[in-house]
Amino acid sequence: MNIKEKFGQKIKSLREQKGISIEHLANISNVDRNYISDIEKGKRNVSITIIEKLSKGLEVKVQELFNYEE
Amino acid sequence: MNIKEKFGQKIKSLREQKGISIEHLANISNVDRNYISDIEKGKRNVSITIIEKLSKGLEVKVQELFNYEE
Repeated sequence: MNIKEKFGQKIKSLREQKGISIEHLANISNVDRNYISDIEKGKRNVSITIIEKLSKGLEVKVQELFNYEE
Repeated sequence: MNIKEKFGQKIKSLREQKGISIEHLANISNVDRNYISDIEKGKRNVSITIIEKLSKGLEVKVQELFNYEE
């Protein structure tokens, strides 16, 4: 699995743990809904500013988004 | 300081701790030398694939690049 896929899976699992929809995460993180959907599928080469927005929306430190138990 | 600046400072400090030049890091991480220079100045909205290349070049986990003692 490449880093985009790992990152996408982590966003999805954290979002589902919080019990929120993609729409809700899109609203609270100010990131486009379809973009988040693509991210979760590992399709996007996400930038650091989007990474920060998602970490704020998910209320976790940015580091947590890269915790993959390698 | 925004996330781009924090990230840039972290890359620079880790690189300097390892005692390697920007040129050397550019070679081992396969990232353009001028791009690394811009990253260290906080000018670049770095993507996740570049982040991974830099973590490999600096021989640290990606998480370490986002450890800013917030």
